[in-house]
Amino acid sequence: MATEPIVFYDIPSRAPGSAMSGNTWITRYSLNFKGLAFKTMWVEIPDIGDLCKKIGAAPSAINEDGSPYYTLPVIQDPNTGAVIADSLKIASYLDETYPDTPRLLPPGTRALQKGFRAGVEASAVPGSLAFMLPAMVQILRPRSAEYFVRTREASLGHKLSELSPTSETREAAWRKFESGFGKVSSWMDDDGVFFMGDTASLADFAVAGIMQWFRSVLGRESAEWKDIERWHGGRWAKLVSALQKYEGPVEKGPQD
Amino acid sequence: MATEPIVFYDIPSRAPGSAMSGNTWITRYSLNFKGLAFKTMWVEIPDIGDLCKKIGAAPSAINEDGSPYYTLPVIQDPNTGAVIADSLKIASYLDETYPDTPRLLPPGTRALQKGFRAGVEASAVPGSLAFMLPAMVQILRPRSAEYFVRTREASLGHKLSELSPTSETREAAWRKFESGFGKVSSWMDDDGVFFMGDTASLADFAVAGIMQWFRSVLGRESAEWKDIERWHGGRWAKLVSALQKYEGPVEKGPQD
Repeated sequence: MATEPIVFYDIPSRAPGSAMSGNTWITRYSLNFKGLAFKTMWVEIPDIGDLCKKIGAAPSAINEDGSPYYTLPVIQDPNTGAVIADSLKIASYLDETYPDTPRLLPPGTRALQKGFRAGVEASAVPGSLAFMLPAMVQILRPRSAEYFVRTREASLGHKLSELSPTSETREAAWRKFESGFGKVSSWMDDDGVFFMGDTASLADFAVAGIMQWFRSVLGRESAEWKDIERWHGGRWAKLVSALQKYEGPVEKGPQD
Repeated sequence: MATEPIVFYDIPSRAPGSAMSGNTWITRYSLNFKGLAFKTMWVEIPDIGDLCKKIGAAPSAINEDGSPYYTLPVIQDPNTGAVIADSLKIASYLDETYPDTPRLLPPGTRALQKGFRAGVEASAVPGSLAFMLPAMVQILRPRSAEYFVRTREASLGHKLSELSPTSETREAAWRKFESGFGKVSSWMDDDGVFFMGDTASLADFAVAGIMQWFRSVLGRESAEWKDIERWHGGRWAKLVSALQKYEGPVEKGPQD
């Protein structure tokens, strides 16, 4: 077992508890599920690249111009010296390094879990972006918000606000958002809570991480989040609720 | 166990053995893997809709205009009276109805297998279409070829041949095709043959079915197929080879 707390790098926000990113939520859940002690280090988005270069974290992708693209989550394990980026690679590392803790990737399912995540991202995430990306600006802290808007708008070639549906297109866009998760729901049995049946695994944390992102960005009292809680027989609300014990304490976010 | 052969509806082609469709190959592999007796009924593409309505097979999707969209594979099991469409639903049915045969969806993995397949389709199939769709015309029999070209061109709004890369864009398009499968390869361990490790499962049949489609359409002696056989350390050639025992006998295709 770990004796020193693992350092977990996460992106801060204005949301309660600060954690907001779907991808970093996967690792937050993973660490709590395994009962591993960890300490959160909050990193504003424009600082992620420099941090990763400094601590030796691998880029998660290569940009079209050949430059490295760094993202969180990253963990730094003082017990082994390892620095790992990418929630899937982190899950593999934690399963291998701490074999006496519950498995995130049960035996034989590692490739299936990775393909499943690609399936969720392709099926369900695109329909959310018209609602989520423009709203991200409200939830990020100032330096990250400015950087997010600038880099996303450069990549899109237009204003983020142009992604937002109009009053005429909103209903259809919302149904498209819902139907993407309907596809994911169709992979499960009607009465199942976890994707593998009785036990939680990385697949559940991947989808619940996305739900945490939605809830933080839309606001937990918003009509949009309340609607998502009703989708597909309340499946996603039940999933988030069943995993609440792995959210960990609401940590104190960084000071403004 | 089944006492009467299951009826398996497949799409004929000019390829050796006739079977060509990636989706129906999944079910062909599945039936052979389970050792279930079956008989192939060859159905030209324009006849699929009428067949499905006649035998009561469910559509696999609903078109944008609200009309049902029927596809193969479909099986009809005279032992139970069941008629099932969709290779994933067929796999679930066969596992449940013939529990003493090898499992296509090992316990706990059903949702993961379904998500995995969506992940493969999103990651790897799009890059193949510029090469595969125009070439399909050469491998289908006349009525199916005519129908395929007419319906696909109506849906695309342009000629199928316009999908083909030019001599200037071909190299980049081929690298994109390869890199889609590189993503799928990255989900596996370097030395693994099957996605779940020691045992074949539906995930392997899904990817090998796509490879059968490539091999039939490109031609097994083509430079393109020889190149695919070399991709990612020869991973896909090894997979198809390891599953050869589940291809079954080369059945006699329909007479022209």
